[in-house]
Amino acid sequence: MSALDATALDALFLEARTHWQWQDRAVDDSTLERLHTLVKMAPTSANCQPARFVFIKSPEAKAKLEPCLTEGNRPKTMTAPVTVIVCEDLAFPETLPTLFPHADAKAWFDGKPAFTEETAFRNATLQGGYLILAARALGLDCGPMSGFDQAKVDATFLEGTTWRSNFLLNLGYGDPTPLFPRSPRPAFADVCRIV
Amino acid sequence: MSALDATALDALFLEARTHWQWQDRAVDDSTLERLHTLVKMAPTSANCQPARFVFIKSPEAKAKLEPCLTEGNRPKTMTAPVTVIVCEDLAFPETLPTLFPHADAKAWFDGKPAFTEETAFRNATLQGGYLILAARALGLDCGPMSGFDQAKVDATFLEGTTWRSNFLLNLGYGDPTPLFPRSPRPAFADVCRIV
Repeated sequence: MSALDATALDALFLEARTHWQWQDRAVDDSTLERLHTLVKMAPTSANCQPARFVFIKSPEAKAKLEPCLTEGNRPKTMTAPVTVIVCEDLAFPETLPTLFPHADAKAWFDGKPAFTEETAFRNATLQGGYLILAARALGLDCGPMSGFDQAKVDATFLEGTTWRSNFLLNLGYGDPTPLFPRSPRPAFADVCRIV
Repeated sequence: MSALDATALDALFLEARTHWQWQDRAVDDSTLERLHTLVKMAPTSANCQPARFVFIKSPEAKAKLEPCLTEGNRPKTMTAPVTVIVCEDLAFPETLPTLFPHADAKAWFDGKPAFTEETAFRNATLQGGYLILAARALGLDCGPMSGFDQAKVDATFLEGTTWRSNFLLNLGYGDPTPLFPRSPRPAFADVCRIV
């Protein structure tokens, strides 16, 4: 495939920022569906696709989310047009006969709850990363967060399912006014080796 | 930020494929450094940046990797120009005074090995997802893999460090000749909810 141009690299990586103040501009449901058409095409182990996404848009659902958040994450989340609960489905092996019909991949997980959980967490998190970059690719801005009460989110939004929350992601069109300069980044030599 | 055009969405998501046969075309070290300049700009929790990347290029290092792989992953990995060991550094809190100077974020992890490990795994995996899409953005093709002996990779390549392997990623310029049609993807209604 051909490389992306500098404008696209800026939009995805180099100039994109984590946002916490939002323009008064909605994100419609068709944009969320389009986002999913991108995310689902990116790779997961044996195409296991364990991520599940709860898109919180309504004021009623937002009000239920608020007490699950750390104080510092409340204002930016309450004002975001959408907050996504990025989840993993611990029952993902049930979908493998459909998603990976070439082998009996479901059997790889039989009686292996720790391996199932690790695979779900790794691959749903990868898909969460794809979600962030896919959102930016569609012109949206992101605000990912780990600061929330996972048990409370699960009890409030996921009861009766096999889904478990992983991290939260505010989505919308960011207002860059309050952004600080970027934090430092590690040097190549500090975190990479070529052998 | 502005949205990407259709060609870029194809290159990142819609037409990109996991590759296992490679053109005879090297990936030079400057491309790996450029890749890191993109990955390090994408978001992690409190800018913790726990991912570490071991780029295996030399025949000697490739030969050490081979016995760590499941049979099915050997030919495609031995012929790939580069295989990345995507790792997390469990000692990442030590870097927080530099990477996140606004708060005493290092203290959040004091005496909390399970929280430290979960944060390392989640954020390094996110960075692994960024790595896949950044590679595609630079015109490279990817082949991510979970089928390997983690303990053996750690003993062979990471001994004496606080790094731990997470997944492997072949990098190069793919030959699409042997690719099968794509596996099925889940429908929006199967894996998403809007509330």
